Amino acid sequence: MRKDGRKNDELRPVKITTGFSKFAEGSCLIEMGNTMVLCNASVENKVPLHVKSGGWVTAEYSMLPRANRSRSVRDVTKLKLAPRSAEIQRLIGRSLRGAVDLQRLGERTITIDCDVLQGDGGTRTASVTGGFIALALALRKLREQGELDEMPLKTYVSGISAGIVNDEPMLDLCYEEDSRAMVDLNCIMTADGRIIELQGTGEGRPFSFEEQAQLLSLCKTGNAALCEIQKSIIGELG
Amino acid sequence: MRKDGRKNDELRPVKITTGFSKFAEGSCLIEMGNTMVLCNASVENKVPLHVKSGGWVTAEYSMLPRANRSRSVRDVTKLKLAPRSAEIQRLIGRSLRGAVDLQRLGERTITIDCDVLQGDGGTRTASVTGGFIALALALRKLREQGELDEMPLKTYVSGISAGIVNDEPMLDLCYEEDSRAMVDLNCIMTADGRIIELQGTGEGRPFSFEEQAQLLSLCKTGNAALCEIQKSIIGELG
Amino acid sequence: MRKDGRKNDELRPVKITTGFSKFAEGSCLIEMGNTMVLCNASVENKVPLHVKSGGWVTAEYSMLPRANRSRSVRDVTKLKLAPRSAEIQRLIGRSLRGAVDLQRLGERTITIDCDVLQGDGGTRTASVTGGFIALALALRKLREQGELDEMPLKTYVSGISAGIVNDEPMLDLCYEEDSRAMVDLNCIMTADGRIIELQGTGEGRPFSFEEQAQLLSLCKTGNAALCEIQKSIIGELG
Amino acid sequence: MRKDGRKNDELRPVKITTGFSKFAEGSCLIEMGNTMVLCNASVENKVPLHVKSGGWVTAEYSMLPRANRSRSVRDVTKLKLAPRSAEIQRLIGRSLRGAVDLQRLGERTITIDCDVLQGDGGTRTASVTGGFIALALALRKLREQGELDEMPLKTYVSGISAGIVNDEPMLDLCYEEDSRAMVDLNCIMTADGRIIELQGTGEGRPFSFEEQAQLLSLCKTGNAALCEIQKSIIGELG
Amino acid sequence: MRKDGRKNDELRPVKITTGFSKFAEGSCLIEMGNTMVLCNASVENKVPLHVKSGGWVTAEYSMLPRANRSRSVRDVTKLKLAPRSAEIQRLIGRSLRGAVDLQRLGERTITIDCDVLQGDGGTRTASVTGGFIALALALRKLREQGELDEMPLKTYVSGISAGIVNDEPMLDLCYEEDSRAMVDLNCIMTADGRIIELQGTGEGRPFSFEEQAQLLSLCKTGNAALCEIQKSIIGELG
Amino acid sequence: MRKDGRKNDELRPVKITTGFSKFAEGSCLIEMGNTMVLCNASVENKVPLHVKSGGWVTAEYSMLPRANRSRSVRDVTKLKLAPRSAEIQRLIGRSLRGAVDLQRLGERTITIDCDVLQGDGGTRTASVTGGFIALALALRKLREQGELDEMPLKTYVSGISAGIVNDEPMLDLCYEEDSRAMVDLNCIMTADGRIIELQGTGEGRPFSFEEQAQLLSLCKTGNAALCEIQKSIIGELG
Repeated sequence: MRKDGRKNDELRPVKITTGFSKFAEGSCLIEMGNTMVLCNASVENKVPLHVKSGGWVTAEYSMLPRANRSRSVRDVTKLKLAPRSAEIQRLIGRSLRGAVDLQRLGERTITIDCDVLQGDGGTRTASVTGGFIALALALRKLREQGELDEMPLKTYVSGISAGIVNDEPMLDLCYEEDSRAMVDLNCIMTADGRIIELQGTGEGRPFSFEEQAQLLSLCKTGNAALCEIQKSIIGELG
Repeated sequence: MRKDGRKNDELRPVKITTGFSKFAEGSCLIEMGNTMVLCNASVENKVPLHVKSGGWVTAEYSMLPRANRSRSVRDVTKLKLAPRSAEIQRLIGRSLRGAVDLQRLGERTITIDCDVLQGDGGTRTASVTGGFIALALALRKLREQGELDEMPLKTYVSGISAGIVNDEPMLDLCYEEDSRAMVDLNCIMTADGRIIELQGTGEGRPFSFEEQAQLLSLCKTGNAALCEIQKSIIGELG
Repeated sequence: MRKDGRKNDELRPVKITTGFSKFAEGSCLIEMGNTMVLCNASVENKVPLHVKSGGWVTAEYSMLPRANRSRSVRDVTKLKLAPRSAEIQRLIGRSLRGAVDLQRLGERTITIDCDVLQGDGGTRTASVTGGFIALALALRKLREQGELDEMPLKTYVSGISAGIVNDEPMLDLCYEEDSRAMVDLNCIMTADGRIIELQGTGEGRPFSFEEQAQLLSLCKTGNAALCEIQKSIIGELG
Repeated sequence: MRKDGRKNDELRPVKITTGFSKFAEGSCLIEMGNTMVLCNASVENKVPLHVKSGGWVTAEYSMLPRANRSRSVRDVTKLKLAPRSAEIQRLIGRSLRGAVDLQRLGERTITIDCDVLQGDGGTRTASVTGGFIALALALRKLREQGELDEMPLKTYVSGISAGIVNDEPMLDLCYEEDSRAMVDLNCIMTADGRIIELQGTGEGRPFSFEEQAQLLSLCKTGNAALCEIQKSIIGELG
Repeated sequence: MRKDGRKNDELRPVKITTGFSKFAEGSCLIEMGNTMVLCNASVENKVPLHVKSGGWVTAEYSMLPRANRSRSVRDVTKLKLAPRSAEIQRLIGRSLRGAVDLQRLGERTITIDCDVLQGDGGTRTASVTGGFIALALALRKLREQGELDEMPLKTYVSGISAGIVNDEPMLDLCYEEDSRAMVDLNCIMTADGRIIELQGTGEGRPFSFEEQAQLLSLCKTGNAALCEIQKSIIGELG
Repeated sequence: MRKDGRKNDELRPVKITTGFSKFAEGSCLIEMGNTMVLCNASVENKVPLHVKSGGWVTAEYSMLPRANRSRSVRDVTKLKLAPRSAEIQRLIGRSLRGAVDLQRLGERTITIDCDVLQGDGGTRTASVTGGFIALALALRKLREQGELDEMPLKTYVSGISAGIVNDEPMLDLCYEEDSRAMVDLNCIMTADGRIIELQGTGEGRPFSFEEQAQLLSLCKTGNAALCEIQKSIIGELG
């Protein structure tokens, strides 16, 4: 049994507070156990230069300096974005764009800010799950204001991690488990169980095709549950 | 009467949630109306080079990109701390050091991170008021762990702003009032009504000695109320 | 009596050399005792994006690396403006804008560069006093060239500091006094004795309302004298 | 059939020139079709602070500005490492560390510089394949100099990509194929067919578990061939 | 006799591989002994702001981190271009512009990237010699595509160094000689023996007018030989 | 005849004010016509890592933003030292080190800050001439304080430029001449007429060996006069 009493295929308690920030077009605070990420969506009526038609969705990811067990130096003090943050925000952006019909979005950029208030493992996947909700809430607002005829979403999108700890595959690792995991796999999926992003790392040892399949299967279970939660909050996507 | 029904010498509703961050040695979320600042204190057993004896207290201040009505670019994207943030975090640091006996603190640095989750005016003074609480909670923890014999605090410290709007002096301006204010004055004070920091700006027009005295008097009222709240949370300082 | 023989309410010798830089539209070297600041005003026929109508006045402040008793590292080596400099140049900019009718200035930016050649206390207030002269000289030049009908100045503006040293309030602290001061207050004022900017810090101990009033009164005396000097150099503002 | 006549499970021509750089402890130029990466290994007798015992292996990845069809701005001109490069060099570092017994390496850091002279798809996986050779050559040199008793390598490591183009799974995409791919998967593997790193992205559409398995199987074929080439160059690892 | 058997006025073996990079408009790898510089010319149909009429030619210079005997930190890690590289790329740009009729080039910028793959002395002069070839190849391509009627080149341009080692003037110093040289002189010349750039440094001791003339004469010999090689590769300039 | 009435081999009026900065160990303001450079020498009792024995002399060079006819952006705003400044300060450093016996200097670093208050051509050579005086004054102070037995100077060092304007060789170009010059040559020389640094550029056209010799000869005349001035200020070097 796991330290916090969960079964190997069990998610941590999920709590989602929508409207946490009053000013953002879409906002939620997502908590998965002790991990807390504030996801805010902001809408701008312009697109970056590289977008030739339709709209754009992008993300920024950052950790508050005291989100973790020890304080870390702010990125701005180091005059650069931490490479890890750069990598994560590219993942979040790609994942959310996978859910959006950018043509139907029109000439708009939606930026999802994912700020980790507290980090206890799984912050990047929580950012995708919460970021999708903030995004959907912002799109609904645009529809309600008559700026969009329909929500340009193709699917729900959520993310979860799984890993091998003490040679047992487990879902949704907390920090303590993550730091002992030999293998770690993150998976972003659609509501119908297809993959948008998949990242697996054999930090402690290489892993076999069979282990990879087991972890993927755990992620499928977890993402199915998270998509249900998203549906209960956002409702139908049409 | 003011837009939100307050009298000219009335504070906005104050709400303080201690222990918001589980990992920080001291933590509180301070809300003054819609302004929300997360204040976390972190302890390190070393001091900067310029400190020759005793300890050090410092602060960092930052706004989440969507803390305000429109999204702002992250500092790290601009490769520098916004000058306004640099100025504010120097103010917070000086203010809190004014409350601490650095000799009795011992060879330690306490860093207070003030991250504005939502900004609706008065973020710098809320950061001082909330930062003091995070600091005191961290010091109490050190005392409870036997690392300090007593809390090295000389006084409670809080901050508040006042300003002249439509030629009327008012306490604790919200953003909407602040943006119309001709004169703006911030004051950091001790529990016995003395001044640690005072910053007044005639943004719209110069102000007379009499107006300055009126604003200072309003701040005294506000700070007295805030110190009472601090006392009810922290208890005696000894 | 003070180290250099001055009375507590006495300024250091003030020396102002106009036209120090041949190329700047307005230029003066201001010396207050050993403090030397070169103030140059440059005119550009465009305004920053955030200015919707009228003109703009801004300032930059920097210390030469060997302006002080020991050499400091150049900001560019550290890849950032020193936070202290950032704070000071914001103060200078706000103070000088307080003297200008930006509408009448027209679509122009005037940048005041304040470069401290030698620092012996009071560099920020000397920058305001000298910066105002450079600004006025640049505006007069524009008027003489027929680009302005009148000088868009509402008032003379100067700055001075006062502080409490050995429990005595004193005007215009030199470095040696400043480093021993318990309380330090800077005040930027108009020719008719109203306040544009006020910054007080209890570096060594908090200060009472009475002490604050005493320091403010000293600054009034000092600024009145400085405005007289400005008048003798610039003449009438019309 | 593919544009260059290859079958779907066929690698591009692989050419490896060892000793390209005379000064590096280990060096090879790896070419996969038109993709050319110069991989140089440098040995230092110290480790980063975070390494408490044993050694360290790290990588840096960069593209020459004219490696691609159009010239890109150098990172140093933008004052930051491109986020894509940051992400890739973290991947290369993790992959190569997966092959090394860091304890047996001793207190040394080996840095693998992967500089893309020409980019035509698959630069990150070519960097791992070539980087491993540079690393092994540097380790052999240390062994020949008597600084190591044996080469601290646990396995050969290589990387390859596969993708879905026109709904067909294909191995080792060139740039032209990569830019049309709906799904892209990179896989770093050991000589015995286990996974060290796995990254899949549904850039054009989500992909099913079956498709993921097909791509993984292609990568297995490709990596097996690359490990044979590595063996023929490096010989036994002992 | 010199370490590698050369006479004092003898160049190292020169090898030039054109078309090294497939994508650049003009490309060559120049080797002078062990020094290897990849020179790529890129054409853009726009010019920098400061160019009022005609075109522009500019250069960038960089060393791969392991180009030399020990590894150096990448510039981007230090967040700035090494001052030495900045100085060298300004020299290369000025030298190549000296050969071009910028009016006849038309509204185009040609950027010459000089990336040192291996450095064994004389990298800046090799960059000019090789950069000129890359430039000429790019111009010929423009002429062949009908975008230029004739090649806007006024002359061949090459560069070489000479120095005083053990009190003997020598041509084309390798690193080992360069590090022992008392005096070092670089000279960029036209095909008819006139000077475009001249830089002499008495690193170990000052040098006389006579010594300066001797070194200049050696450079003339070397540059004449290099221009012949350029002619054999590029053909007539018309 | 030249615009300001000078003959072709005549220097502009030279004015040197020693002790301009009270705090620097050595200080002078050097004026050559309208060019004004403040040169300050600072002494530190440590050396950079790369210095294995003896001392070090280094220089920093910067222009005040309004030193010139139009205002330039401060380097710190651009987050980097202007490449031109980087190149110049390397030249000044090398030139002054050429005059010093670093072994006899002992484990000290002397930094010469050359800040151009006003620029009218020839700022880099004026920086060397004035920088040498600041350096010598700082060394004399060390000797007077008993920290050095003798001044570790091998020679006087000065710098001057010459150029070809309207096909006439001229000494000490002012900005207006410099901007029309076809050829520009800077030369740093010792008191006995030997060369420490030589930089010639054919900005408008290549130049012949004969022209180069003429310019060098003009520089010799100019430097001889400047060394006489240095002697009259510093006295004997012993």
